[in-house]
Amino acid sequence: MNFRMIVYIVGQLIRVEGVLFVVPVITSFVYHEKEGFVYGVIGSLLFVIGFLITLIKPKNNIFYIKEGCVATALCWIFLSLFGALPFIFTGEIPNFTDAIFETVSGFTTTGSSILDDVEALSHTSLIWRSFTHWIGGMGVLIFLLAVLPLTGGSNVNLMKAESPGPQVDKALPQVKNTTRLLYVIYGSLTVLEFIVLLFTKLPVFDSICMAFGTAGTGGFGILNTSCGSYPIASQWVITIFMLLFGVNFNVYVLIIFKRFKKAFNTEEVKAYFSIVLVSIIIISISIYKSSSGAFQALTDSAFQVASVVTTTGFSTADFNTWPTIARVIMVLLMFSGACAGSTAGGIKVSRVCIAFKVFIREINSFLHPREVKTIRMDNKVIDTKTLRSVTIYFITYAFIFIISLVLIALDGHDLVTTFTSVVATFNNIGPGLEMVGPTSNFASSVPLANGCSYSICWPADWRFSRC
Amino acid sequence: MNFRMIVYIVGQLIRVEGVLFVVPVITSFVYHEKEGFVYGVIGSLLFVIGFLITLIKPKNNIFYIKEGCVATALCWIFLSLFGALPFIFTGEIPNFTDAIFETVSGFTTTGSSILDDVEALSHTSLIWRSFTHWIGGMGVLIFLLAVLPLTGGSNVNLMKAESPGPQVDKALPQVKNTTRLLYVIYGSLTVLEFIVLLFTKLPVFDSICMAFGTAGTGGFGILNTSCGSYPIASQWVITIFMLLFGVNFNVYVLIIFKRFKKAFNTEEVKAYFSIVLVSIIIISISIYKSSSGAFQALTDSAFQVASVVTTTGFSTADFNTWPTIARVIMVLLMFSGACAGSTAGGIKVSRVCIAFKVFIREINSFLHPREVKTIRMDNKVIDTKTLRSVTIYFITYAFIFIISLVLIALDGHDLVTTFTSVVATFNNIGPGLEMVGPTSNFASSVPLANGCSYSICWPADWRFSRC
Repeated sequence: MNFRMIVYIVGQLIRVEGVLFVVPVITSFVYHEKEGFVYGVIGSLLFVIGFLITLIKPKNNIFYIKEGCVATALCWIFLSLFGALPFIFTGEIPNFTDAIFETVSGFTTTGSSILDDVEALSHTSLIWRSFTHWIGGMGVLIFLLAVLPLTGGSNVNLMKAESPGPQVDKALPQVKNTTRLLYVIYGSLTVLEFIVLLFTKLPVFDSICMAFGTAGTGGFGILNTSCGSYPIASQWVITIFMLLFGVNFNVYVLIIFKRFKKAFNTEEVKAYFSIVLVSIIIISISIYKSSSGAFQALTDSAFQVASVVTTTGFSTADFNTWPTIARVIMVLLMFSGACAGSTAGGIKVSRVCIAFKVFIREINSFLHPREVKTIRMDNKVIDTKTLRSVTIYFITYAFIFIISLVLIALDGHDLVTTFTSVVATFNNIGPGLEMVGPTSNFASSVPLANGCSYSICWPADWRFSRC
Repeated sequence: MNFRMIVYIVGQLIRVEGVLFVVPVITSFVYHEKEGFVYGVIGSLLFVIGFLITLIKPKNNIFYIKEGCVATALCWIFLSLFGALPFIFTGEIPNFTDAIFETVSGFTTTGSSILDDVEALSHTSLIWRSFTHWIGGMGVLIFLLAVLPLTGGSNVNLMKAESPGPQVDKALPQVKNTTRLLYVIYGSLTVLEFIVLLFTKLPVFDSICMAFGTAGTGGFGILNTSCGSYPIASQWVITIFMLLFGVNFNVYVLIIFKRFKKAFNTEEVKAYFSIVLVSIIIISISIYKSSSGAFQALTDSAFQVASVVTTTGFSTADFNTWPTIARVIMVLLMFSGACAGSTAGGIKVSRVCIAFKVFIREINSFLHPREVKTIRMDNKVIDTKTLRSVTIYFITYAFIFIISLVLIALDGHDLVTTFTSVVATFNNIGPGLEMVGPTSNFASSVPLANGCSYSICWPADWRFSRC
């Protein structure tokens, strides 16, 4: 194990985190808030500590998947611990467990909150909260990769350790260039959303926070109604951008390189939009009666579907009060998630597609026992190794899910709350149903629940990794 | 496709079903009930029709897995249709859909009931209802195999079509001898339970019906309280026999051949009893406060765990009112089921074991990447084909489950009812939670629910098959 290298990476991370505190500090100047002082001090300390750690350069850059996974885990842990400090020292979230929960929920882009009254927070803390989504959205190590001076081979191992899909796609030959390009796309889309939101007459501060939350598919709102009080136009803009951030980023890379035909024929993306469309139609019909008109039903349905399938977690309607068929579809969408290679969590559409093709192949092989069919995605044969990794993913997913479920069940809440709070945090969505529904929050949970919900946030991070 | 052969098998089945009506007819004589007349007439008609069909002997006995699956499906359908007739014609369950639901639930050993007042039924119909569990318990075709004059090779294909586990075990070289031996074990255990129950001072009629229901892991009670009003001793006897019928029957074959060491070291059986023991302990602790004493808590916990893990569905306590942790464990047990090669439904412990070993292997292979480990059960390496079939089983299971869930969700009941009614029928258990809890029944569902619940009973039958 190359420990020095791991320490060096963690040091880099702390240094970068210190720099990132500039965002809330600037905000505090704009709004004349004293909380900026706390952020400034902590940010400077982190920068200095990180700088001192990185003075000790590792002897060699050799880096395997094992080191990659350990570094990933440590980075998430330290990022959350230090990121929670300002909440505690400004006194805005004085309870340690609560502050950690909120920060972990932010960086993992879960978006579950323990806050009863979000609007009581200062602008400084609100923007830091939303900014954690943006930082965590692409994965912390992908973020580091974009700035770190590492050699090529090592990067691939880091990349593998945090790849959010069944295959590490080699869209571009060099990892560093890939990650930078991905960040350019990520940043451009964020800025674009911010600008379009301004056109819908959303205030500047709200537009920034919404853009951060959408980009990272996080879901922290800055109003107690989440997005419920925003203009219809803003809601539709957020809906569309949530869906765009759920698309495999390789599609955008292909578009940049003008390979339009390949971009628009990606099977996963077609499946993704089909799932979204069918869900929106079914839910619109089921909530039509209780809505004020067809357009309202369509707007609410589209927003909530986009929010949940991309594991963002914003809300404009309380889907906890929807009919059973709509609620069941919402829970199924929570599991599926959006495309691999996007900022969304969940199982990912590509894995669901592969599983579905295995299912169909088996039915076929029963009807035509002599035909041996291979499974293809985008006209490429899925090799046995990938098939096996998908299988193992599902099995591991199931076991971690069951263990989390039993732990949370110890809290003694009702079954729907228990089940959906695990679904919502494990898949990094945010709101679940019943006591953790869109209009409630995780504050209602007793201290044990916080401890447990907290403990299931970690596997959520691990879900990102292929370890 | 060898159609003549399929017709011949179905004919045999109808003929045998006619003969089986002797049991309720005899009961009607004992209790001087007029319902026996209806059973007698229908039974005779079935016998004659079946006899006429089987006059046309098939030209060849060649029989492949495809024919096996079609025959299995047709046998289940006809068995249920004709088995429901007496309920309709005696007027005891006049509604056609209800009668079919009850019979399908019986033959598939599900044990879900649409009856509000079971005690209103005649003894004749009660015993037929419980007897359907006993007939369905071993699988209809295994039953036919024990009596049918087929050639060896064909039998193996039938056996494969209805094997309730990942591997068709070749404990004995000849299928016919195996099935007969299995029936001898099945019958002997049933008789043994009946005798032991008599010693606990349970009435003769109750003892017979309970023995039928336990053996087939069915779960139709003959009292509105299920087994709640039976003496504690009887409850423990039923608990133990439920668990015994959940053991892989190969273990009993090994015991008969005096291979005790192999019998008591079967990995699946050890895992099965470990799961049962751990569940009983946790649940006993969680319900201790609300029970009248530790022994009562243990008795209730053991009975309910045995009932659900073996997918029987009898009840002595309303586990719907238990604490969340206990309810979550009960739902997990509903999925796992008991051993392969037993009369129980569910996923089966051996499949859960294999999945768990895959999970552990992956964790190991991360820690020690250079070691390639094979997966073993009972010191035998699990080959790739079996591993693949287990994987495909889980994927197919998941998709059928999701489709069923969406269909049942259209009924608009609460989420827990929706979810557990699918779990309870798909895994052939019987009671779920909330509106389909142990003290309720499926009668509360609107007609659409019946239609849908009915439709999900069919996949439940298919679950038996390997198609």
